[in-house]
Amino acid sequence: MGEPSAKKPKLEGDQLPEHLNAFQEEQKRSLILIDEVQNELDQINEQASEEILKVEQKYNKLRHPHYERRAEHIKNLPNFWSTTLLNHHQISSIINPVEEEVLKHLEILEIEEFEDIKSGYVIRLTFGDNEYFENDKIEKEINLAGEKPCTATTPIKWKEGKCFIKNDDENNPNETMSFFEWLIRNVDPTLDDIAEVIKDDIWPNPLQYFLCPALDATNDTYEEF
Amino acid sequence: MGEPSAKKPKLEGDQLPEHLNAFQEEQKRSLILIDEVQNELDQINEQASEEILKVEQKYNKLRHPHYERRAEHIKNLPNFWSTTLLNHHQISSIINPVEEEVLKHLEILEIEEFEDIKSGYVIRLTFGDNEYFENDKIEKEINLAGEKPCTATTPIKWKEGKCFIKNDDENNPNETMSFFEWLIRNVDPTLDDIAEVIKDDIWPNPLQYFLCPALDATNDTYEEF
Ligand SMILES: [Ca+2]
Ligand SMILES: [Ca+2]
Ligand SMILES: [Mg+2]
Ligand SMILES: [Mg+2]
Repeated sequence: MGEPSAKKPKLEGDQLPEHLNAFQEEQKRSLILIDEVQNELDQINEQASEEILKVEQKYNKLRHPHYERRAEHIKNLPNFWSTTLLNHHQISSIINPVEEEVLKHLEILEIEEFEDIKSGYVIRLTFGDNEYFENDKIEKEINLAGEKPCTATTPIKWKEGKCFIKNDDENNPNETMSFFEWLIRNVDPTLDDIAEVIKDDIWPNPLQYFLCPALDATNDTYEEF
Repeated sequence: MGEPSAKKPKLEGDQLPEHLNAFQEEQKRSLILIDEVQNELDQINEQASEEILKVEQKYNKLRHPHYERRAEHIKNLPNFWSTTLLNHHQISSIINPVEEEVLKHLEILEIEEFEDIKSGYVIRLTFGDNEYFENDKIEKEINLAGEKPCTATTPIKWKEGKCFIKNDDENNPNETMSFFEWLIRNVDPTLDDIAEVIKDDIWPNPLQYFLCPALDATNDTYEEF
């Protein structure tokens, strides 16, 4: 019989909660037997989660060299990532005009999942030389493990007078949060739609956005262009 | 190289969309190579989905005998399922007073997933003899496959003058839909929170709801009872 998971009610023979004292002995026995079944199911569920995670890890490894090859080809296409981000309606909606210029220096966008997948990932942005900041890489790390999921971003080393971020108070988020404001803020990653879109929508297939700002999802060819 | 999935943009050597004619030959070649990588990734993703589905099918089989044993023990506990449903705040919020009486005749609640898991499941309710309807089983089948997911419920054979459902117009859903109104309606299963709660929350561990109407999720013992 498996161990009960930490937050589940426990029922051990002589520890029946008082409000169940009205049950007859045979019914109490049934309750305890149901509890045993639930403990066994807990164990099976845990094994299932672990096995699915291993499958996901295996396929992440298989995807990796393809992402690497893709990155090499993408380097031949000027403005691939800025075009891709601007063609995605959710991302473009937070990119302001200055940021549109800045993102022309974005050379590589990468997602790196943590080894165990479930505890988080990094969004890594690699920039060419530019007039705004010294960093060549800016990483936003999304930590999903632990009691309080959080994010951490590489501090941006602004060039003299070149900081274009107006609202960097993460306790005062407003409706018009911009792309770089999103980038530097430690927001609850479980509520961070932008990070999720980049990881689950753009990263798996950026080409579709690069090619096609107005692609109607129901068309499967480019015939009307 | 894999086949492109049906709804993705296609890029085959001589079929570049017109708006990409401005690209130089080398860049066009890069685009086509990126597209090839995406096709390979599509294939990997499909394999991953299939393998995860197989893991889920394997564990569903492993869970099955435990659910069977649980069902045997549950039979010894009068009103197990009505108590369990009434102790779940989302389900109890749609059970009206008449239905509370009717559900005292609910002897078995079962979920049966389709063999392939992904295409749907059945919620099967088995009732004892009662004054309301002739059916001993009422099944709500949730079909997730196909273009238009749908549900289908066993027609209820009401006893003379005993139909207690007031609003059976599924085109006119109102805020106060009751449990049996939910049961008989063909609503879009992708928007059906009630079916999902029964399948993913109650069915995996009904005991926690049966035992504990006011269980605070942060307590792991019954000490305060
Ligand atoms: Ca236990
Ligand atoms: Ca293709
Ligand atoms: Mg890449
Ligand atoms: Mg059962």
